[in-house]
Amino acid sequence: METVRSTITAVTSPVVDSLLPSSRPAKPWQEVAKEAQEHRDQTIAAVQPDIPNVPDELPLNVTAIPTQLLTAEELEITGQTAEQLLPKLASGKLSSVAVVNAFLRRAGLAQKLTNCITELLPHRALSRAAYLDDYLATHGRPIGPLHGLPISVKEHIGIRGLDLNAGFVSCRGEIASQTAHILQILHNAGAVFHARTTEPQTLMHLETSSNLYGETVNPFNRALTCGGSSGGEGALLALKGSCLGIGTDIGGSIRSPAGNNGVYGLRPTSFRLPIDGWKATMAGAEAIIPVIGPLSRSLEGLKIFMTVILDAKPWLKEPSLVPFGWREGLQVGWFGWRSEKRRLKIAVLWDDEVVKPHPPVTRALNEVVEKLRHKEGITIVDWKPFKHDLAWDVVASLYFCDGAADESSCINASGEPWRPLSNFIITDNAHVKEHTIFSLWEWTIKREEYKSKYAELWNQTASNYKAPLESLRDMVDVILCPVGPGAAPPLDCARYWGYTSQWNLLDYPAVVFPAIQADPEIDKADEGYISRNEQDEYNHKLYEPEEYRDAPVSLQLVARRYEDEKVMEALEIIRGTIDLPFSKGLSD
Amino acid sequence: METVRSTITAVTSPVVDSLLPSSRPAKPWQEVAKEAQEHRDQTIAAVQPDIPNVPDELPLNVTAIPTQLLTAEELEITGQTAEQLLPKLASGKLSSVAVVNAFLRRAGLAQKLTNCITELLPHRALSRAAYLDDYLATHGRPIGPLHGLPISVKEHIGIRGLDLNAGFVSCRGEIASQTAHILQILHNAGAVFHARTTEPQTLMHLETSSNLYGETVNPFNRALTCGGSSGGEGALLALKGSCLGIGTDIGGSIRSPAGNNGVYGLRPTSFRLPIDGWKATMAGAEAIIPVIGPLSRSLEGLKIFMTVILDAKPWLKEPSLVPFGWREGLQVGWFGWRSEKRRLKIAVLWDDEVVKPHPPVTRALNEVVEKLRHKEGITIVDWKPFKHDLAWDVVASLYFCDGAADESSCINASGEPWRPLSNFIITDNAHVKEHTIFSLWEWTIKREEYKSKYAELWNQTASNYKAPLESLRDMVDVILCPVGPGAAPPLDCARYWGYTSQWNLLDYPAVVFPAIQADPEIDKADEGYISRNEQDEYNHKLYEPEEYRDAPVSLQLVARRYEDEKVMEALEIIRGTIDLPFSKGLSD
Repeated sequence: METVRSTITAVTSPVVDSLLPSSRPAKPWQEVAKEAQEHRDQTIAAVQPDIPNVPDELPLNVTAIPTQLLTAEELEITGQTAEQLLPKLASGKLSSVAVVNAFLRRAGLAQKLTNCITELLPHRALSRAAYLDDYLATHGRPIGPLHGLPISVKEHIGIRGLDLNAGFVSCRGEIASQTAHILQILHNAGAVFHARTTEPQTLMHLETSSNLYGETVNPFNRALTCGGSSGGEGALLALKGSCLGIGTDIGGSIRSPAGNNGVYGLRPTSFRLPIDGWKATMAGAEAIIPVIGPLSRSLEGLKIFMTVILDAKPWLKEPSLVPFGWREGLQVGWFGWRSEKRRLKIAVLWDDEVVKPHPPVTRALNEVVEKLRHKEGITIVDWKPFKHDLAWDVVASLYFCDGAADESSCINASGEPWRPLSNFIITDNAHVKEHTIFSLWEWTIKREEYKSKYAELWNQTASNYKAPLESLRDMVDVILCPVGPGAAPPLDCARYWGYTSQWNLLDYPAVVFPAIQADPEIDKADEGYISRNEQDEYNHKLYEPEEYRDAPVSLQLVARRYEDEKVMEALEIIRGTIDLPFSKGLSD
Repeated sequence: METVRSTITAVTSPVVDSLLPSSRPAKPWQEVAKEAQEHRDQTIAAVQPDIPNVPDELPLNVTAIPTQLLTAEELEITGQTAEQLLPKLASGKLSSVAVVNAFLRRAGLAQKLTNCITELLPHRALSRAAYLDDYLATHGRPIGPLHGLPISVKEHIGIRGLDLNAGFVSCRGEIASQTAHILQILHNAGAVFHARTTEPQTLMHLETSSNLYGETVNPFNRALTCGGSSGGEGALLALKGSCLGIGTDIGGSIRSPAGNNGVYGLRPTSFRLPIDGWKATMAGAEAIIPVIGPLSRSLEGLKIFMTVILDAKPWLKEPSLVPFGWREGLQVGWFGWRSEKRRLKIAVLWDDEVVKPHPPVTRALNEVVEKLRHKEGITIVDWKPFKHDLAWDVVASLYFCDGAADESSCINASGEPWRPLSNFIITDNAHVKEHTIFSLWEWTIKREEYKSKYAELWNQTASNYKAPLESLRDMVDVILCPVGPGAAPPLDCARYWGYTSQWNLLDYPAVVFPAIQADPEIDKADEGYISRNEQDEYNHKLYEPEEYRDAPVSLQLVARRYEDEKVMEALEIIRGTIDLPFSKGLSD
């Protein structure tokens, strides 16, 4: 029993708790944070040639700065997506050393521009890259489908021998005893891990701020958040310091940063991708299942990620996973419509009826829908949301079943202060209560009831829904909806999770893609708007058009449980039909 | 929200508990039980022609009695399996009315011989059968793949308008507001529900005794148990009062009665078959997932059951289910070996090293293994059990996370006495404690650690297990093992769950099949045996060869999670290679 899942550890335990008063940390938390930042800076300083300095006075939008500071070759390399780089790496047209070093340099710059890195791994990454270059030269073939490709990793996904702190000062200094299962698969496929990225205190913010590293900001507008909790990934990918990265999501943590930074992100259905070897609080909790998933500068990158992992049959090592691969071209959905030339039926969720999206979000939806509306093979209908406020009550009541004791211990153990959004989601969150077994069961039943009701509503989108279900061929395929109630908000203001946590509760796969950028000239505030509730009022007041200038506005496509392939295929069809993203400022 | 899962109700709640002292039941429990039995007897009396009386003095083995008391036509019909009856029903060669009535008559006899019925449904069943006969005559085709076939149902799987008591006196009188999802699918496929069968108090015995109906006994030897908790199904099927039935299993409750009665039973992997609409305590509990599955007089019957349910895409209505059908002929396992003529590799678990199986069980294993050992295409190896005692600690610590408060309330609410095996599994079970959220998480982690370790051991059965897992082609396919530590024990003595609960913990699919019958002339006791522990001593002392005379001895075949198709296909191959069952006294 000594090796299996040994790195999936509760970060604290009641025994540790009871020891806390007499075992205060030896160092003040500020000193621990200073050491963490010094270590980070040393790893960046180790990249050669030295990473150029950036201007003292940075503009709000820093996305163009790397193009002024890197070499033409580096820009050529880092401007490419995973699917563009891989054949060149596999053929030797590009060496892995050159590619990895170019991304290391750009990642170092991204750190200076947005504070998105916890450490770079130049020594490990370049030595691995050199090995792979040798391997290709010697064997005449790549080592695997990701041969030589640099991949960035959110910090709490463990790498053997490296720190694993999950955003808590108290955990800084804990060393991973083994590399996470998913990273082992990527490594075996030829990937090179070059950068580790920031995450927030608790991992439960839709932003990225911790006392170890401070705040990660949005490269399109540094006054705005990069989103979170996989926010370091979002900012790094937008600045092209990586082309493919790994995040985690229990309430929006892949999709928020993908959306805020104008890149692609997929929250797969639970139990498809392996999670053994990450570090998080509340180990053993099962009421809401967290997932790992990819963020990428291209849609194709997400699919490459999924196929490589699933081709390795991770369920043989991690028995909680469902044992089937990526069902390429099999069907969009379970009815094989492609072979029958069935229409793609898209339902549009304009507004969840709890918090009204800001004008840029509604414009993005409008532009996409108007372009799709009369296209051959595509049907557009409206989606009527069903009690998304109840959905939040349920999911929020099941996030911290221990009353957030574990989270609180991890924060308090070092004496570090609570970040504003930690207070928001724990201290000020009326749903956070310690459950008894019985109350856990009660909320679990509410969760299942809600899921069943949503399934029933989805079934009813078929015109003849009273017929045996297997014969329904015009059921809605996917829901098109916002990623959040606005584009990236100002720091510490991401306080409505509903547009993403909804799909965690339902365990639906969801992919995020860029559409437009916020434009204060077009996206005027609705001055006469009467708010529906406190959350809606907060969000409405947040919208000052000028403050959101340049912010990417992304959308979310959602399918039913385990229809991960379908949601990806549907987005490919949509992108093949209309020319997304519409804004030239967004990466692709 | 008003309809979905509304019949999955916790049978009690803390609110009800607190009311108990002032709301004692209006009637003594004995009166409630008497009414239940009178109702049962009335439904049996409604079957025409009257069911013959059985001798006052019954022999221990009553399996031959129905052949003396039923008509030749009834014996001809009820002697057939599901796959033999279905084409005749579909073509009209046999009418559904004739078939249903024959099985009603034989089920009534089975009740008189073993006490396995809670009620027969002659009016509903015959009126449905007449409708189906008309349908066939009018339309010239059957209504569905189960057209006209009678199916028996364990009582706690709800049928609209009928009592739903789950074995508790206090629940007698509660009426199901809708029919369970799985029964709806069977009904739509043309099945006719003709009999409801007994289950024990708490549903958590490997026997079948309740204060509502008393004890169900084994038709091969009435001094022995029929097993449980789906024990009514086991006895009814063995007596051919049904050819296909439905049970449920969280620790062996399908496999124990299938094994004890010499019929087939499948515990599918969790989340394959729908469970909405059954009644059980501890609704909302997820630490160990209970499943529904078929019991059948034939192996083919199990497969018919699985394919009919999965063809209806139950995941569209019940979103906790995994969305894939029965993968017919796809592969045994994930390597497509059949197309490559790979060998079937069977690992034999002779003994779990906690409780040594009785001599008849070891003989059954020996006979099967010796016949298979040198057959073309079959490889036999030994399976080394890994800490099955720890496995019991984990699963038993996760069965009653509320400290069995819910079970206790349901028993105590009526004043009915605790059955001996209710005391065994709750009162006298040191693992039963009320968990905190934190201790629930701790045990959940232990569960996952154990599952991962077992997966690793399974992977290591491949000769080159250090290679990438996807290339391993000589991994063990299935484990062959006992169903229990002996054949059916005397009443109230089924006190070791390890041979079945092991696979619930691991969530492996497991199919049970008959092999031999216990024979005191051959299966001598091991007089010099030195027991390993208290459980082993209890089991060893239980073995008196003469007491087990005629008891069916069955075996269990187990595959990895979600390899339900593989375990069935492997058993088909085994049966195609050697002529099972070896004992002519066993049904087929």
